[in-house]
This record gives sequence, C-alpha cells and structure tokens, in this order.
Amino acid sequence: MKKYIIGVDLGGTKVATVLADTCGSILARAELPTEAARGQDAVINNIFQSVDMVLAEKEVRTDEVLGLGIGSPGPLDAEAGIVLEAPNLGWKDVPIRDILQERYMVPAYLENDANAAGLAEQRFGAGRGAKYLLYVTVSTGVGGGIILDGSVYHGAHGIAGEIGHIAIDSEGPACNCGSMGCLEAFASGTGLVRRTIEAIKSGAKTKISDMVDGDLDKITAVTIAEAANEGDGFAIEMYKSVGRYLGVGLASIINFMDPDVIVIGGGLTKSADLFFDEMRKTIDERAFKAAAEKVKILQAELGGDVGTLGAVAVVMDASGIKC
Amino acid sequence: MKKYIIGVDLGGTKVATVLADTCGSILARAELPTEAARGQDAVINNIFQSVDMVLAEKEVRTDEVLGLGIGSPGPLDAEAGIVLEAPNLGWKDVPIRDILQERYMVPAYLENDANAAGLAEQRFGAGRGAKYLLYVTVSTGVGGGIILDGSVYHGAHGIAGEIGHIAIDSEGPACNCGSMGCLEAFASGTGLVRRTIEAIKSGAKTKISDMVDGDLDKITAVTIAEAANEGDGFAIEMYKSVGRYLGVGLASIINFMDPDVIVIGGGLTKSADLFFDEMRKTIDERAFKAAAEKVKILQAELGGDVGTLGAVAVVMDASGIKC
Repeated sequence: MKKYIIGVDLGGTKVATVLADTCGSILARAELPTEAARGQDAVINNIFQSVDMVLAEKEVRTDEVLGLGIGSPGPLDAEAGIVLEAPNLGWKDVPIRDILQERYMVPAYLENDANAAGLAEQRFGAGRGAKYLLYVTVSTGVGGGIILDGSVYHGAHGIAGEIGHIAIDSEGPACNCGSMGCLEAFASGTGLVRRTIEAIKSGAKTKISDMVDGDLDKITAVTIAEAANEGDGFAIEMYKSVGRYLGVGLASIINFMDPDVIVIGGGLTKSADLFFDEMRKTIDERAFKAAAEKVKILQAELGGDVGTLGAVAVVMDASGIKC
Repeated sequence: MKKYIIGVDLGGTKVATVLADTCGSILARAELPTEAARGQDAVINNIFQSVDMVLAEKEVRTDEVLGLGIGSPGPLDAEAGIVLEAPNLGWKDVPIRDILQERYMVPAYLENDANAAGLAEQRFGAGRGAKYLLYVTVSTGVGGGIILDGSVYHGAHGIAGEIGHIAIDSEGPACNCGSMGCLEAFASGTGLVRRTIEAIKSGAKTKISDMVDGDLDKITAVTIAEAANEGDGFAIEMYKSVGRYLGVGLASIINFMDPDVIVIGGGLTKSADLFFDEMRKTIDERAFKAAAEKVKILQAELGGDVGTLGAVAVVMDASGIKC
C-alpha cells in the first residue's frame, strides 16, 4: 500500500521536508541548512538527508511512498523536472526531478515554489475549494501562482502567474527582470526598503534613521514595520503605499483573471495589518464592481508549512487524489 | 438531422446574422440596422427578422437547427443569458437568450462579443489550434477574450479577459471604467484621438489640424492614420505610441497568463502596420524572454465575419462539436 507522500521545500537558506499521508496530514518533519555556497552536490545531499530523516523517523520504506514533490525557486521547467536557474541556490540546469526519482525509485514532481504554495492554500489553507484562485506571495520579491479547478495553471511556456512582473507604472523604476515599473519593484520588501531609503535621503522625517544608527543600509522591512507599529507616521505611510501598489496590481488582475479567491502570503504579511486595508480600498476603487465586490481576499493560513505542503499537494494533484 | 447553426452578432449599429453548417461554414448572411434608438423591442424585432431571413434563404426549418448563438456588447451574464447593461443598445437586464429560445425553440447561447470573437479566431482564424489564446480587440475601446483549451475562460463572475482595464500607469488619465491609467485610456481609438487632440492643443506640429479644417473634434483614428501614411511625423509617432502602450500591457499579461498565441483584432488593426512593430519591440523589451520569444502575436483573420462566426463557435463549443 502506497500511503505516504514526501514533500520537499527547497529554499535558499533551508531544506524543509515532510512525510505526509495521502491527504496531506504531516507525520514527520526534517529541516537542514541548504548550504548553497558548498555547491550543487552538497545541496542535493542535504535534500537526500532530509528525506532519509523523515522516512527513518516513521520507519517508512520507499515502496510505501506514492510520490515525492519538490518546490523550488525558479525559473524552472516543471514538465521536464529541471531547475533552469536559481540564483539563491547557485543552480543551473539541474534535473532534480530525475535525480530524486532515481535515488528513491518513486515518482517525483518538481514545481515552482509560488505555484506549490498556491496549490497548498487551495487544498489545505485559506483558499480551500476555490475554483479560480490567485496566490500572491509578498516577500523579498512578489510572486504568484494561478490555481484553476484545483490544479496549477502553467501557461504555454511554464511561466504563468508572475504577477510581480506586471507593470503598474510603465516608466517606473528598473526591475530585476529587466523591465520597468513592475509591481515587484514597488511592493516587494526590497522595493519598500529602496523607496524608504530614497525618501529618507530626500529628507523624510522618521525615527527609522535613528533605529539603524544612521546606517540606512541596515533598514529592512521589519525595521519599517517596527517604526510603524510605534506610531511613526512616515513608516505607516510607507506600508500603506505597499497596500496601494498591491491594490493597483490586483485590481488589474481581477479585471483580467476574475478570481473567486485571492490568497496573500509571504514574509510581508507578518505586517498585513499595516497594508491590507489600503490594498482592499484600492481594489474597490479601481476594479470592476461585479468582480471586486465578490472576490475574497484572504491571508494565507499555512505559514511555515506552505512550502512542504505545496510539494505534497503537487503529488496529490498528479496522482488525482482529491481527499 | 440538426445540421445548422445560427450566429447573431449584435452591435450598436447593425445586427449581422449567419446560417452556418455545424463546422462553421457560412451558408447565408443577413444584415439589418440595429435601430437602438427605437427601443428594446425594435432591436429584438430586427434580430428576429435577420434570423428569419437566413432561414428563409436556405429554406431551413428551425427543427433542423442545432442552436443559436448571439454575441453582444457587455456587461452581460453569459450563464444566465442576460445582457445586463449595454449603453450602445440602450439595453438593461434583457434576457435575450430566453427570448430567442422561446421564439425559435432551439437552444440559445449568449456570449460577450470579445469572447465570441476570440473563440472564432481560435476555431477558424489566426489562432487555430492555440491552447492558451488571448484575443485583443483594439477599437473604440480595448477588449479581450481568454480562450483556454478551446473554450471561453469566464472567470468566477463572468468578467474575465478585460485586458483594456489593466492599469499601465497607475496615476494615468481617468478611464470610462472609473479607474485610472487603464490600457484602454491610452491605446484605444478613443484614447489615441484624445491624446492627439491634447498634443495639438499643446502645440504639436502636424497636418492633422488642416485635414479637419481646424475643428479638432472632427479628428478620428482614421484621420491620424491618413496623416501618418502621408508621412506626417507627429501622426506616425502617435500610432507608434499606441504600439508602445499595447506592448506594455501585453508584456504584463504575457508574464501573467503566458499564452501561446495572441490575436489582435478590432478597427485599429486596419492600421496595424503603423503600430505592430513598436508593439512587438516593446513586448520583447519588457516580457520574460522564455515566453516573449515564443508567443505568436498575429493579426485577426476573420474580419467582418468574426462576430457572427464567434456566435456560431459558441454553439459548437456548447454542443461539444470539434470539427
């Protein structure tokens, strides 16, 4: 009986792995540092170790495992199972799906981390049962995943869902993707910090400068949130602007994709109370009423498990398991 | 044997109707003025007449008709078969699907005109066989239709595909939809004319003013195209700007939806040579390479038949006919 699923969340700093049952209940967890700096083989070895750990903990044999899913930063080719280029991992063209399949002799599946997270929220989290779900992660960058009828929508070339790279101001600041004025350039943690530093350099009054002893390079999204929570007007406005920019981007996507549920996750949602209201207000002002009034906009529910559960959900989806 | 399909294209100025076989070959055509000014019943009567005309021409009985499709300007509720509000028709909450069904005793289907056009181009036109097709109509407004796996993608509330209402400049000019800086406000025929008049009032040098004897309200997209084709530098730049704005919007949507084919139709494509190159260049500069290099961007092929064939395609899709 194949009654287990393994889910691996491969991140830039850690590899998190779970053993789950075929309905996504977590039975065992393991976590190791990624050690990207030690090279590709070291990372792969850490993945192996973490998988071995969860199998050993529950004394599960690989012939009892239905499948192994792995979520990874992109860009990647999910169909071919290859991580094309992951700067955080120092990886280029790594056929991780086949590597895992050969090692464990179980069907393995690779998925973009934002897509996997979206699938997890649709199966187990805030978006349970949504038919047209948009998952948005607001963190260092802004990523997204489109889940239609319970499966990841990949598009024609596997890059669909990149909501961070829709332009909200066509002549706006340069984006890492090579374009200009992308949502990510404004609303990501990195964008927030950049805009904050620029404003301080232009003379904005705020306690943030003192909090970092004048060393503006030390400012993080957390610093700004702390200042906002202590009542710093400038910091409050900066977080509101994150909500406004997200609202502009989401209003566009609501008009185009018309989702029933939008789930917002990622590191910045720790400070969701600082930008959610403004985001919702902006959407209501800008998107078509017929959709804006009905779309549910929810915070992600799965927290630290979203990556591993996403990888588990990928296996469930590929195996046609509904639960 | 039910071997015929009726397709009705309901527009603000004319009602065009065809009788087709079940594979979309047109057997008979009829066209009448819409006469929206004469009220809802007059319009419905003109639809009836046009349908009666194509049936009579081929001596077809309604019990030989598989279904009747009608494409209409929106917003509408395709599922309920109701045109909610069509300013061009002076209609509000008209259950046209049931009205047609009761009159002809054949299954009837209502679809948004841009969605129907997209479906027609995917079945019979430039996008034949595309799996992830985006249809964009650039005309008085900018509309769109998403065709996934050969069927219209409606989204959760029936409004999906509104590419004209994604913001490309969040603080840009007011849009008819109530938002600001939408693609439609820049790249539609109306947007082009507005921007042209503004530039002329600000002192732009162009022969356009002379072409309309100084009456700027007479300027249309056609006037500007004529000037451009006669070598007027300003007019050429104005059309290039349409390409640039469309390119910005399409680059965003390529990153989000990742289509395999984009078909561009609508009145402004009569002057496609004045903006297509700039549009393609902008897309290549801004969208993710993996998608931008592969997506085909094509001009619509069906011309004046796109509306009626779209309505026919809606019936084919609802009846599961592939051909």
